[in-house]
Amino acid sequence: MNNTQFLFSAVQCGIKYPDKYDLALISSSIPCNCAALFTTNKVCAAPVILSKERIDNQVQAIIVNSSNANACTGDKGLENARTITSKLASELNIPEESVLNASTGVIGVQLPTDKITAAIPELSSSLSSENQNLFARAIMTTDTVPKHVIRSFSTSSHTYFIEGFAKGSGMIAPNMATLLSFIVTDASINKSDLQTLFSEAINKTYNCITIDGDMSTNDSAFILSPLSDNPLSKEELPLFYEALYSLLEELALLLVKDGEGATSCVKITVKNAKNQNDAKLCARSIAESLLVKTAIFGNDPNWGRIACAAGYSGATCDQNKLSIFFEDTPLLLNGTPQVYDKNKLLEIMRKDSYDIIIDMNIAEAGWSYWTSDISYDYVKINSEYTT
Amino acid sequence: MNNTQFLFSAVQCGIKYPDKYDLALISSSIPCNCAALFTTNKVCAAPVILSKERIDNQVQAIIVNSSNANACTGDKGLENARTITSKLASELNIPEESVLNASTGVIGVQLPTDKITAAIPELSSSLSSENQNLFARAIMTTDTVPKHVIRSFSTSSHTYFIEGFAKGSGMIAPNMATLLSFIVTDASINKSDLQTLFSEAINKTYNCITIDGDMSTNDSAFILSPLSDNPLSKEELPLFYEALYSLLEELALLLVKDGEGATSCVKITVKNAKNQNDAKLCARSIAESLLVKTAIFGNDPNWGRIACAAGYSGATCDQNKLSIFFEDTPLLLNGTPQVYDKNKLLEIMRKDSYDIIIDMNIAEAGWSYWTSDISYDYVKINSEYTT
Repeated sequence: MNNTQFLFSAVQCGIKYPDKYDLALISSSIPCNCAALFTTNKVCAAPVILSKERIDNQVQAIIVNSSNANACTGDKGLENARTITSKLASELNIPEESVLNASTGVIGVQLPTDKITAAIPELSSSLSSENQNLFARAIMTTDTVPKHVIRSFSTSSHTYFIEGFAKGSGMIAPNMATLLSFIVTDASINKSDLQTLFSEAINKTYNCITIDGDMSTNDSAFILSPLSDNPLSKEELPLFYEALYSLLEELALLLVKDGEGATSCVKITVKNAKNQNDAKLCARSIAESLLVKTAIFGNDPNWGRIACAAGYSGATCDQNKLSIFFEDTPLLLNGTPQVYDKNKLLEIMRKDSYDIIIDMNIAEAGWSYWTSDISYDYVKINSEYTT
Repeated sequence: MNNTQFLFSAVQCGIKYPDKYDLALISSSIPCNCAALFTTNKVCAAPVILSKERIDNQVQAIIVNSSNANACTGDKGLENARTITSKLASELNIPEESVLNASTGVIGVQLPTDKITAAIPELSSSLSSENQNLFARAIMTTDTVPKHVIRSFSTSSHTYFIEGFAKGSGMIAPNMATLLSFIVTDASINKSDLQTLFSEAINKTYNCITIDGDMSTNDSAFILSPLSDNPLSKEELPLFYEALYSLLEELALLLVKDGEGATSCVKITVKNAKNQNDAKLCARSIAESLLVKTAIFGNDPNWGRIACAAGYSGATCDQNKLSIFFEDTPLLLNGTPQVYDKNKLLEIMRKDSYDIIIDMNIAEAGWSYWTSDISYDYVKINSEYTT
C-alpha cells in the first residue's frame, strides 16, 4: 500500500537473539486519533499501563519490541518504557505523550533498555513508507509467518486504505484477542466513532478465536486515524466498518492458522441456541476443550466430546434435541447418533479448515468461534519456550 | 481388606476389546444407604439418569462397565441400562430398584446389551470378598494403574474399614472429580450424614484436581454404608470423616499422577487471597492453564505464565504484591522478579511431585489444587482415542 502518512521501520537490537528484528516503529506524519483495546488481565505489562495513560492524546508513533514482554517487571519496567518512549520522542521531535508502546515476549525479565535506546536513532532514520513487511516480521515471536493485510474502501469522493498487522500464535484467548495488532488508515474518523467501531469489529473477530485459552499480560490492539477537520460522515462510516471488519477477520484467521503447532483451523458454529450469550458460551466451551482440540489434531470425528463440552458450557442444552454436523454430514441428530461414511469424514477433517455446526434446536440465536488443534508441536513449543 | 458384607466380581464380556475386563459388580449382603455425587453436565449418560432415580432407595448392588459410556445414546441407551440392571436384579434375587449403574468409555455408541446380559450369570456367580483388585482393574479405561485405597478407623467399641476405588485419567475437572469412584464401608451411617460428609470430603479432594479441564458426561461417585438400627453416633462421625477424607485424598492424588501422559503432580497453593472464592478461582486458573502445564512438562520455571493466569483468574490481584515460590525458592517477591539458582529449580521440577505457592498478600484466605502436566503423550492418547 503506497501511502505517505504512515512510515515503518525495524532494527535488530539484540534484545534476546542476535539475528532477530526485535524493535519496530510506526510513525505518522499527522497527529492521529487512536482507539485501542487492551488485555483485561489484572497482571498487565508496563507498556499496557503506559499506552492506556496516553490513549486519549494525539498519537504520532508506536514503538514495539518483541522477545521481551516487559511484564511483571515492577516500577523499573514502567520506568524503562518511559525512557524508551522519551528517547524516541526526542529523536522524532514529537511530544513524548504522543508515543505509545507495546511489547511481546518472555515475562519477568527487565528490558535491555540501553540496547534499545542505542538503536533508536537507526530505527528513526530508517523510517520508510515501504517497510511494512519488515515491521510485520519484527513483531513476531513464535509466529511462523508475518501477518499483514490491506483493505480499501471508496466514498463518492475518495478511496481510502486500511492496513493491519498482527502477531499472535500462543496465548490467544477470546477475552481479548491477539497479543499485538496495529491498524492504520488514511481515513479520518472522529475519536468516539473510531473506538465504537473498532471495539465492535474486534468483538466479532479477535474475540472469537482461541488457541490455548490463556489471556496474555500484553494484549493490545491499536488503530490510528489522522486528525482532520473533515472526518468521515455518518453515512460513510459503514463503508469503513465493512472494510475494517473484513481486514480484522482475515488477520484473525491468519492467527488461528498459525496457532502454535496448529495443523487445522476449525469454525465452530452454534445455532438455534436460547440466546446469543448461550450460543457464545457453548461455541467457546467447544472451541476451548482440550479433548475436542486433540481429536481435531487426530482427524478423529469424536463428536461425543463436542456434545460433552456443550453440556458443561453453562448454556441451556437439551441432549434430546442436540444435533452435530461436520460440514453437511450429521453425526448426531436430535440426540440420536447417526451412521456416517468414515472416509467422507476423514476427507473433511484432513482439510486445512472446515466447519463444525452444533444445532441446539431450542430458539434462534447463533455465534461462531474459530479454533486450532493441539498437536505434539504445541507441547514442544510451549515446554521449551524460556529455557 | 477382609469383609464379608461387600462382594466384588468382574468378567470380560467383549464390549469393545476381546481381552479386557469390562464388566464389574459390587454387591452388598445387607441393604445400604447410598450417597452420591454426579456430573453436572447437561449432557449426561443413561446410567447417571438411572442411578439418580434410585439413589434414595435401599441399595444392594452397582453394576459398572468400561469401554462404553452409554452417553448420547438417547432413549435406547436408557432402556439398555434398565435391561442390564433388571437382569442383574433377577440373577441376585434383589429388587431392581436396589441396583445402580455406572459406565465409562466412548460416547455415542450403543451398549452391546446382549453380550452384557449374557455375561451377568458368570458375573454374579463369581462374586467374592477377595476380588477387589479385579474390580479396580475392570473399571479402568486409559488409566495405567488400578486405584484402590483402604482406611480404617476405630470407635471405643469397634474398628471399621473404608475401601475405595476410582478410575480417572483424562476428562478430570474440578467441577466434579473423577469419572467413576466407588466407596464402601462397614460403618453404618444415616443417610443425611452420609451425603453431607461425602459431599464435603469430595469438595476438598476430587473437586480440587484437574487434568484437562473437561467435565465428563459420566462422572459418578458413590458410597455404600449398611442400614442398621445403630448407626454411628454424632461423636463418632468425625472419626469416619477423617478416614474418608484421607482415603479420597489419596485416590485424588493417584488420579492426578496417572493423568493421561502426566509426568508430574504439582500442588498449586494460593494463600493470603481476599477470600476463599478468590483463592479457589486463582488456584484453578493456574492449575488449568495450558501454558503453565506445558511449562511444568518442560521443567521450565516460567513463573510469568503463573502470574498471567493469576491475573486473568477473576480474583482480586495486585501485581505489585504478588509473590511466587517453587517449594521454598522465591521467583517473584512483591511484584519484583528474583534471581534464583537454576540448578536448584531444575532439581525441584524434576521431582514427581512438588509445590508451587502463590502469595497474593491481600488478606488471609487460601486454597489448593493438584494439577498434572500436559505432555506429548497426552496429545497422543487423546488424538488416537476412538479411531
